[in-house]
Amino acid sequence: MATFTDETIRQQFTFLAELDHLKSIVRQSPLINQNRKENSAEHSWHLAMFAIVLSQHAENVDVLRVVKLLLVHDIVEIDAGDTPIHASSKDKALLAQAERQAADRIFGLLPPQQGQELLALWLEFEIAETPEARFAKALDRLQPLFLNTLTGGGTWTENGVTERQVIERYGPTIKAGSPALWDEASNLVRQHFSDQAKAQA
Amino acid sequence: MATFTDETIRQQFTFLAELDHLKSIVRQSPLINQNRKENSAEHSWHLAMFAIVLSQHAENVDVLRVVKLLLVHDIVEIDAGDTPIHASSKDKALLAQAERQAADRIFGLLPPQQGQELLALWLEFEIAETPEARFAKALDRLQPLFLNTLTGGGTWTENGVTERQVIERYGPTIKAGSPALWDEASNLVRQHFSDQAKAQA
Repeated sequence: MATFTDETIRQQFTFLAELDHLKSIVRQSPLINQNRKENSAEHSWHLAMFAIVLSQHAENVDVLRVVKLLLVHDIVEIDAGDTPIHASSKDKALLAQAERQAADRIFGLLPPQQGQELLALWLEFEIAETPEARFAKALDRLQPLFLNTLTGGGTWTENGVTERQVIERYGPTIKAGSPALWDEASNLVRQHFSDQAKAQA
Repeated sequence: MATFTDETIRQQFTFLAELDHLKSIVRQSPLINQNRKENSAEHSWHLAMFAIVLSQHAENVDVLRVVKLLLVHDIVEIDAGDTPIHASSKDKALLAQAERQAADRIFGLLPPQQGQELLALWLEFEIAETPEARFAKALDRLQPLFLNTLTGGGTWTENGVTERQVIERYGPTIKAGSPALWDEASNLVRQHFSDQAKAQA
Protein backbone atom coordinates (compact mmCIF):
# COMPACT_ATOMS: atom_id res chain seq x y z
CA MET A 1 0.00 0.00 0.00
CA ALA A 2 1.29 3.47 -0.91
CA THR A 3 2.04 6.32 1.49
CA PHE A 4 -0.91 8.39 2.73
CA THR A 5 -0.79 11.78 4.42
CA ASP A 6 -4.00 11.12 6.41
CA GLU A 7 -4.03 8.08 8.74
CA THR A 8 -7.85 7.75 8.72
CA ILE A 9 -7.93 7.65 4.93
CA ARG A 10 -5.00 5.17 4.90
CA GLN A 11 -6.96 2.78 7.14
CA GLN A 12 -10.12 3.24 5.09
CA PHE A 13 -8.30 2.56 1.81
CA THR A 14 -6.63 -0.53 3.31
CA PHE A 15 -10.10 -1.86 4.22
CA LEU A 16 -11.53 -0.99 0.78
CA ALA A 17 -8.63 -2.80 -0.93
CA GLU A 18 -9.26 -5.87 1.29
CA LEU A 19 -12.92 -5.87 0.19
CA ASP A 20 -11.81 -6.54 -3.39
CA HIS A 21 -11.27 -10.20 -2.39
CA LEU A 22 -15.03 -10.72 -1.95
CA LYS A 23 -15.26 -10.64 -5.78
CA SER A 24 -13.33 -13.94 -5.80
CA ILE A 25 -15.52 -15.82 -3.28
CA VAL A 26 -17.69 -18.14 -5.37
CA ARG A 27 -21.16 -19.11 -4.13
CA GLN A 28 -23.26 -22.17 -4.97
CA SER A 29 -25.95 -20.31 -6.96
CA PRO A 30 -25.68 -20.04 -10.75
CA LEU A 31 -26.14 -16.82 -12.71
CA ILE A 32 -29.50 -16.86 -14.51
CA ASN A 33 -27.64 -17.28 -17.85
CA GLN A 34 -25.89 -20.30 -16.23
CA ASN A 35 -22.45 -19.26 -17.59
CA ARG A 36 -20.88 -19.52 -14.14
CA LYS A 37 -21.59 -19.45 -10.39
CA GLU A 38 -22.31 -16.16 -8.66
CA ASN A 39 -19.67 -14.46 -6.47
CA SER A 40 -20.40 -12.90 -3.09
CA ALA A 41 -19.71 -9.28 -4.13
CA GLU A 42 -22.19 -9.23 -7.03
CA HIS A 43 -24.63 -11.24 -4.86
CA SER A 44 -24.43 -8.47 -2.25
CA TRP A 45 -25.20 -5.85 -4.90
CA HIS A 46 -28.15 -7.87 -6.18
CA LEU A 47 -29.48 -8.20 -2.63
CA ALA A 48 -29.18 -4.46 -2.00
CA MET A 49 -31.33 -3.93 -5.11
CA PHE A 50 -33.82 -6.53 -3.77
CA ALA A 51 -34.04 -4.38 -0.61
CA ILE A 52 -34.60 -1.14 -2.53
CA VAL A 53 -37.25 -2.69 -4.80
CA LEU A 54 -39.10 -4.92 -2.32
CA SER A 55 -39.07 -3.01 0.98
CA GLN A 56 -42.79 -2.17 0.70
CA HIS A 57 -43.47 -5.86 1.41
CA ALA A 58 -41.77 -5.70 4.82
CA GLU A 59 -43.37 -4.08 7.81
CA ASN A 60 -41.89 -0.72 8.73
CA VAL A 61 -38.18 -1.11 7.97
CA ASP A 62 -35.48 1.55 7.59
CA VAL A 63 -34.38 0.79 4.02
CA LEU A 64 -30.88 2.31 4.42
CA ARG A 65 -30.27 0.00 7.35
CA VAL A 66 -31.45 -3.05 5.38
CA VAL A 67 -29.21 -2.04 2.47
CA LYS A 68 -26.19 -1.55 4.77
CA LEU A 69 -26.78 -4.92 6.47
CA LEU A 70 -26.85 -6.62 3.07
CA LEU A 71 -23.79 -4.81 1.70
CA VAL A 72 -21.80 -5.85 4.79
CA HIS A 73 -23.23 -9.31 5.60
CA ASP A 74 -20.89 -11.44 3.44
CA ILE A 75 -17.59 -9.57 3.97
CA VAL A 76 -16.45 -12.20 6.52
CA GLU A 77 -16.43 -14.75 3.66
CA ILE A 78 -13.15 -13.17 2.50
CA ASP A 79 -11.52 -15.28 5.25
CA ALA A 80 -14.18 -17.88 6.05
CA GLY A 81 -15.59 -18.73 2.61
CA ASP A 82 -19.24 -19.16 1.67
CA THR A 83 -21.50 -21.32 3.89
CA PRO A 84 -23.90 -23.29 1.69
CA ILE A 85 -27.47 -23.45 3.05
CA HIS A 86 -27.41 -27.25 2.64
CA ALA A 87 -24.24 -27.72 4.80
CA SER A 88 -24.37 -29.85 7.99
CA SER A 89 -24.96 -28.18 11.39
CA LYS A 90 -21.45 -29.21 12.55
CA ASP A 91 -19.87 -27.52 9.56
CA LYS A 92 -22.08 -24.49 10.17
CA ALA A 93 -20.89 -24.19 13.81
CA LEU A 94 -17.21 -24.29 12.77
CA LEU A 95 -17.88 -21.73 10.07
CA ALA A 96 -19.63 -19.42 12.54
CA GLN A 97 -16.40 -19.36 14.64
CA ALA A 98 -14.28 -18.66 11.56
CA GLU A 99 -16.65 -15.87 10.55
CA ARG A 100 -16.38 -14.18 13.94
CA GLN A 101 -12.57 -14.17 13.70
CA ALA A 102 -12.82 -12.84 10.16
CA ALA A 103 -15.11 -10.03 11.29
CA ASP A 104 -12.65 -8.97 13.98
CA ARG A 105 -9.71 -8.98 11.55
CA ILE A 106 -11.37 -7.30 8.56
CA PHE A 107 -13.45 -4.63 10.33
CA GLY A 108 -10.38 -4.09 12.53
CA LEU A 109 -8.57 -2.61 9.52
CA LEU A 110 -10.82 0.47 9.76
CA PRO A 111 -10.44 3.43 12.16
CA PRO A 112 -11.72 1.97 15.49
CA GLN A 113 -15.09 3.70 15.74
CA GLN A 114 -15.98 2.96 12.13
CA GLY A 115 -14.80 -0.64 12.51
CA GLN A 116 -17.10 -1.04 15.53
CA GLU A 117 -20.03 0.37 13.56
CA LEU A 118 -19.58 -2.10 10.71
CA LEU A 119 -18.97 -5.00 13.11
CA ALA A 120 -22.24 -4.07 14.85
CA LEU A 121 -24.08 -4.18 11.49
CA TRP A 122 -22.66 -7.64 10.77
CA LEU A 123 -23.69 -8.87 14.25
CA GLU A 124 -27.16 -7.36 13.84
CA PHE A 125 -27.58 -9.34 10.61
CA GLU A 126 -26.34 -12.55 12.22
CA ILE A 127 -28.54 -12.28 15.33
CA ALA A 128 -31.56 -11.26 13.21
CA GLU A 129 -33.64 -9.76 16.00
CA THR A 130 -34.41 -6.36 14.46
CA PRO A 131 -37.07 -5.98 11.71
CA GLU A 132 -34.32 -4.77 9.36
CA ALA A 133 -32.12 -7.81 9.98
CA ARG A 134 -35.08 -10.19 9.63
CA PHE A 135 -35.97 -8.62 6.29
CA ALA A 136 -32.32 -8.70 5.15
CA LYS A 137 -32.10 -12.40 6.06
CA ALA A 138 -35.36 -13.05 4.20
CA LEU A 139 -33.93 -11.47 1.04
CA ASP A 140 -30.68 -13.44 1.45
CA ARG A 141 -32.82 -16.62 1.31
CA LEU A 142 -35.20 -15.33 -1.37
CA GLN A 143 -32.52 -14.41 -3.93
CA PRO A 144 -30.95 -17.90 -4.34
CA LEU A 145 -34.45 -19.46 -4.32
CA PHE A 146 -35.31 -17.09 -7.15
CA LEU A 147 -32.10 -17.94 -9.09
CA ASN A 148 -32.75 -21.68 -8.62
CA THR A 149 -36.33 -21.49 -9.94
CA LEU A 150 -35.09 -19.53 -12.98
CA THR A 151 -32.36 -22.06 -13.81
CA GLY A 152 -34.31 -25.32 -13.72
CA GLY A 153 -33.39 -26.08 -10.11
CA GLY A 154 -29.79 -24.83 -9.71
CA THR A 155 -28.35 -25.98 -6.37
CA TRP A 156 -31.51 -27.99 -5.54
CA THR A 157 -31.05 -30.25 -8.55
CA GLU A 158 -27.27 -30.52 -7.88
CA ASN A 159 -27.85 -31.53 -4.25
CA GLY A 160 -30.98 -33.67 -4.76
CA VAL A 161 -32.98 -31.33 -2.49
CA THR A 162 -36.73 -32.09 -2.30
CA GLU A 163 -39.68 -29.67 -2.35
CA ARG A 164 -40.28 -30.35 1.33
CA GLN A 165 -36.64 -29.56 2.21
CA VAL A 166 -36.83 -26.29 0.26
CA ILE A 167 -40.00 -25.28 2.09
CA GLU A 168 -38.37 -26.14 5.46
CA ARG A 169 -34.99 -24.47 4.77
CA TYR A 170 -36.19 -21.27 3.09
CA GLY A 171 -39.74 -20.82 4.41
CA PRO A 172 -39.34 -19.75 8.04
CA THR A 173 -36.63 -17.15 7.26
CA ILE A 174 -38.44 -15.60 4.30
CA LYS A 175 -41.82 -15.62 6.08
CA ALA A 176 -40.30 -13.94 9.17
CA GLY A 177 -39.15 -11.03 6.98
CA SER A 178 -42.14 -10.81 4.67
CA PRO A 179 -45.22 -13.09 4.59
CA ALA A 180 -46.26 -11.55 1.23
CA LEU A 181 -42.94 -12.44 -0.41
CA TRP A 182 -43.12 -15.98 1.02
CA ASP A 183 -46.59 -16.40 -0.53
CA GLU A 184 -45.08 -15.68 -3.96
CA ALA A 185 -41.82 -17.53 -3.34
CA SER A 186 -43.59 -20.69 -2.15
CA ASN A 187 -45.67 -20.53 -5.36
CA LEU A 188 -42.45 -20.42 -7.39
CA VAL A 189 -41.14 -23.44 -5.48
CA ARG A 190 -44.36 -25.43 -6.03
CA GLN A 191 -44.36 -24.56 -9.74
CA HIS A 192 -40.72 -25.56 -10.09
CA PHE A 193 -41.17 -29.01 -8.53
CA SER A 194 -44.46 -29.58 -10.36
CA ASP A 195 -42.80 -28.72 -13.72
CA GLN A 196 -39.89 -30.98 -12.86
CA ALA A 197 -42.22 -33.88 -12.00
CA LYS A 198 -44.08 -33.40 -15.32
CA ALA A 199 -40.79 -33.34 -17.25
CA GLN A 200 -39.74 -36.62 -15.64
CA ALA A 201 -43.16 -38.31 -16.16
CA MET B 1 -41.09 -16.19 -15.77
CA ALA B 2 -43.50 -18.14 -13.56
CA THR B 3 -47.06 -17.16 -12.62
CA PHE B 4 -47.47 -14.62 -9.81
CA THR B 5 -50.62 -13.84 -7.86
CA ASP B 6 -49.59 -10.21 -7.25
CA GLU B 7 -48.94 -8.02 -10.32
CA THR B 8 -46.68 -5.57 -8.44
CA ILE B 9 -44.46 -8.41 -7.22
CA ARG B 10 -44.44 -9.95 -10.72
CA GLN B 11 -43.12 -6.69 -12.19
CA GLN B 12 -40.56 -6.30 -9.39
CA PHE B 13 -39.29 -9.88 -9.84
CA THR B 14 -39.06 -9.39 -13.61
CA PHE B 15 -36.85 -6.32 -13.00
CA LEU B 16 -34.72 -8.15 -10.39
CA ALA B 17 -34.19 -11.05 -12.83
CA GLU B 18 -33.14 -8.56 -15.54
CA LEU B 19 -30.56 -7.07 -13.15
CA ASP B 20 -28.74 -10.42 -13.09
CA HIS B 21 -27.28 -9.53 -16.50
CA LEU B 22 -25.16 -6.74 -14.94
CA LYS B 23 -22.96 -9.51 -13.49
CA SER B 24 -21.90 -10.33 -17.06
CA ILE B 25 -20.93 -6.77 -18.10
CA VAL B 26 -17.14 -6.68 -17.98
CA ARG B 27 -15.34 -3.41 -17.20
CA GLN B 28 -11.81 -2.32 -18.08
CA SER B 29 -10.43 -2.38 -14.51
CA PRO B 30 -8.64 -5.47 -13.20
CA LEU B 31 -9.35 -7.09 -9.83
CA ILE B 32 -6.51 -6.32 -7.40
CA ASN B 33 -5.40 -9.99 -7.63
CA GLN B 34 -5.31 -9.49 -11.44
CA ASN B 35 -7.06 -12.83 -12.11
CA ARG B 36 -9.67 -11.17 -14.33
CA LYS B 37 -11.42 -7.87 -15.14
CA GLU B 38 -14.08 -6.51 -12.81
CA ASN B 39 -17.80 -6.76 -13.71
CA SER B 40 -20.28 -3.91 -13.25
CA ALA B 41 -22.36 -5.62 -10.54
CA GLU B 42 -19.47 -6.25 -8.16
CA HIS B 43 -18.07 -2.79 -9.05
CA SER B 44 -21.40 -1.29 -7.91
CA TRP B 45 -21.17 -3.17 -4.61
CA HIS B 46 -17.59 -2.00 -4.08
CA LEU B 47 -18.63 1.59 -4.78
CA ALA B 48 -21.52 1.39 -2.30
CA MET B 49 -18.97 0.32 0.33
CA PHE B 50 -16.73 3.26 -0.70
CA ALA B 51 -19.73 5.53 0.00
CA ILE B 52 -20.42 4.00 3.41
CA VAL B 53 -16.76 4.15 4.46
CA LEU B 54 -15.72 7.51 2.96
CA SER B 55 -18.79 9.75 3.31
CA GLN B 56 -17.18 11.79 6.12
CA HIS B 57 -14.86 13.24 3.45
CA ALA B 58 -17.77 14.74 1.48
CA GLU B 59 -19.61 17.81 2.61
CA ASN B 60 -23.05 17.15 4.04
CA VAL B 61 -24.36 14.27 1.94
CA ASP B 62 -27.28 11.91 2.59
CA VAL B 63 -25.39 8.59 2.59
CA LEU B 64 -28.45 6.48 1.67
CA ARG B 65 -28.97 8.61 -1.40
CA VAL B 66 -25.30 8.27 -2.42
CA VAL B 67 -25.52 4.49 -1.93
CA LYS B 68 -28.73 4.27 -3.98
CA LEU B 69 -27.23 6.38 -6.79
CA LEU B 70 -24.22 4.05 -6.93
CA LEU B 71 -26.26 0.83 -6.78
CA VAL B 72 -28.37 2.06 -9.71
CA HIS B 73 -25.86 4.03 -11.82
CA ASP B 74 -24.56 1.19 -14.03
CA ILE B 75 -27.82 -0.75 -14.63
CA VAL B 76 -28.17 0.81 -18.12
CA GLU B 77 -24.98 -1.04 -19.12
CA ILE B 78 -27.10 -4.22 -19.36
CA ASP B 79 -28.17 -2.89 -22.78
CA ALA B 80 -25.53 -0.24 -23.54
CA GLY B 81 -22.31 -1.86 -22.25
CA ASP B 82 -19.55 -0.20 -20.25
CA THR B 83 -18.21 3.21 -21.37
CA PRO B 84 -14.44 3.32 -20.81
CA ILE B 85 -13.17 6.63 -19.41
CA HIS B 86 -10.57 6.77 -22.19
CA ALA B 87 -13.18 6.50 -25.05
CA SER B 88 -13.51 9.32 -27.63
CA SER B 89 -16.16 12.05 -27.16
CA LYS B 90 -18.01 10.86 -30.30
CA ASP B 91 -18.30 7.33 -28.88
CA LYS B 92 -19.39 8.78 -25.56
CA ALA B 93 -22.23 10.78 -27.19
CA LEU B 94 -23.56 7.67 -28.98
CA LEU B 95 -23.32 5.70 -25.76
CA ALA B 96 -25.23 8.37 -23.85
CA GLN B 97 -28.16 7.91 -26.29
CA ALA B 98 -28.05 4.14 -25.92
CA GLU B 99 -27.98 4.50 -22.13
CA ARG B 100 -31.08 6.70 -22.12
CA GLN B 101 -32.99 4.09 -24.15
CA ALA B 102 -31.73 1.37 -21.82
CA ALA B 103 -32.92 3.32 -18.78
CA ASP B 104 -36.43 3.67 -20.26
CA ARG B 105 -36.64 -0.04 -21.08
CA ILE B 106 -35.15 -1.49 -17.88
CA PHE B 107 -36.70 0.83 -15.28
CA GLY B 108 -39.93 0.49 -17.33
CA LEU B 109 -40.14 -3.14 -16.19
CA LEU B 110 -41.04 -1.93 -12.68
CA PRO B 111 -44.45 -0.74 -11.43
CA PRO B 112 -44.70 2.80 -12.95
CA GLN B 113 -44.13 4.89 -9.82
CA GLN B 114 -41.16 2.81 -8.69
CA GLY B 115 -39.73 2.82 -12.22
CA GLN B 116 -39.93 6.63 -12.25
CA GLU B 117 -38.15 6.81 -8.88
CA LEU B 118 -35.24 4.67 -10.06
CA LEU B 119 -35.06 6.50 -13.41
CA ALA B 120 -34.86 9.77 -11.45
CA LEU B 121 -31.95 8.39 -9.41
CA TRP B 122 -30.11 7.39 -12.59
CA LEU B 123 -30.70 10.85 -14.12
CA GLU B 124 -29.57 12.54 -10.90
CA PHE B 125 -26.28 10.62 -11.10
CA GLU B 126 -25.82 11.47 -14.79
CA ILE B 127 -26.54 15.20 -14.38
CA ALA B 128 -24.39 15.38 -11.23
CA GLU B 129 -25.77 18.63 -9.86
CA THR B 130 -26.67 17.49 -6.32
CA PRO B 131 -23.95 17.05 -3.64
CA GLU B 132 -24.88 13.34 -3.46
CA ALA B 133 -24.48 12.81 -7.21
CA ARG B 134 -21.17 14.75 -7.26
CA PHE B 135 -19.83 12.56 -4.45
CA ALA B 136 -21.12 9.38 -6.16
CA LYS B 137 -19.38 10.44 -9.41
CA ALA B 138 -16.20 11.15 -7.46
CA LEU B 139 -16.21 7.63 -6.00
CA ASP B 140 -16.93 6.13 -9.44
CA ARG B 141 -13.69 7.81 -10.63
CA LEU B 142 -11.74 7.10 -7.44
CA GLN B 143 -12.34 3.33 -7.37
CA PRO B 144 -10.74 2.47 -10.76
CA LEU B 145 -7.88 4.92 -10.02
CA PHE B 146 -7.35 3.01 -6.80
CA LEU B 147 -7.45 -0.41 -8.57
CA ASN B 148 -4.99 0.86 -11.22
CA THR B 149 -2.46 2.10 -8.65
CA LEU B 150 -2.68 -1.26 -6.83
CA THR B 151 -2.08 -3.30 -10.00
CA GLY B 152 0.99 -1.57 -11.43
CA GLY B 153 -1.03 0.70 -13.71
CA GLY B 154 -3.97 -1.45 -14.91
CA THR B 155 -5.87 0.34 -17.70
CA TRP B 156 -3.36 3.24 -17.74
CA THR B 157 -0.50 0.95 -18.72
CA GLU B 158 -2.71 -0.91 -21.24
CA ASN B 159 -3.79 2.35 -22.90
CA GLY B 160 -0.47 4.25 -22.61
CA VAL B 161 -2.14 6.93 -20.48
CA THR B 162 0.25 9.55 -19.03
CA GLU B 163 0.32 11.06 -15.54
CA ARG B 164 -0.98 14.33 -16.95
CA GLN B 165 -3.91 12.60 -18.67
CA VAL B 166 -4.80 10.80 -15.44
CA ILE B 167 -4.77 14.08 -13.51
CA GLU B 168 -6.95 15.72 -16.19
CA ARG B 169 -9.44 12.85 -16.56
CA TYR B 170 -9.92 11.90 -12.91
CA GLY B 171 -9.03 15.10 -11.03
CA PRO B 172 -11.96 17.48 -11.65
CA THR B 173 -14.62 14.84 -10.91
CA ILE B 174 -12.97 13.53 -7.73
CA LYS B 175 -12.15 17.02 -6.48
CA ALA B 176 -15.75 18.20 -7.06
CA GLY B 177 -16.99 15.42 -4.77
CA SER B 178 -14.24 15.53 -2.17
CA PRO B 179 -11.10 17.72 -2.16
CA ALA B 180 -9.65 15.62 0.71
CA LEU B 181 -9.96 12.39 -1.26
CA TRP B 182 -8.42 14.04 -4.32
CA ASP B 183 -5.42 15.11 -2.21
CA GLU B 184 -4.78 11.46 -1.34
CA ALA B 185 -5.71 10.10 -4.77
CA SER B 186 -3.40 12.53 -6.59
CA ASN B 187 -0.61 11.40 -4.25
CA LEU B 188 -1.28 7.79 -5.28
CA VAL B 189 -1.11 8.81 -8.94
CA ARG B 190 2.19 10.69 -8.49
CA GLN B 191 3.69 7.76 -6.58
CA HIS B 192 2.57 5.30 -9.26
CA PHE B 193 4.14 7.22 -12.14
CA SER B 194 7.27 7.98 -10.14
CA ASP B 195 7.70 4.25 -9.29
CA GLN B 196 7.10 3.38 -12.93
CA ALA B 197 9.72 5.88 -14.12
CA LYS B 198 12.25 4.47 -11.62
CA ALA B 199 11.51 0.89 -12.76
CA GLN B 200 12.15 1.89 -16.38
CA ALA B 201 15.33 3.86 -15.61
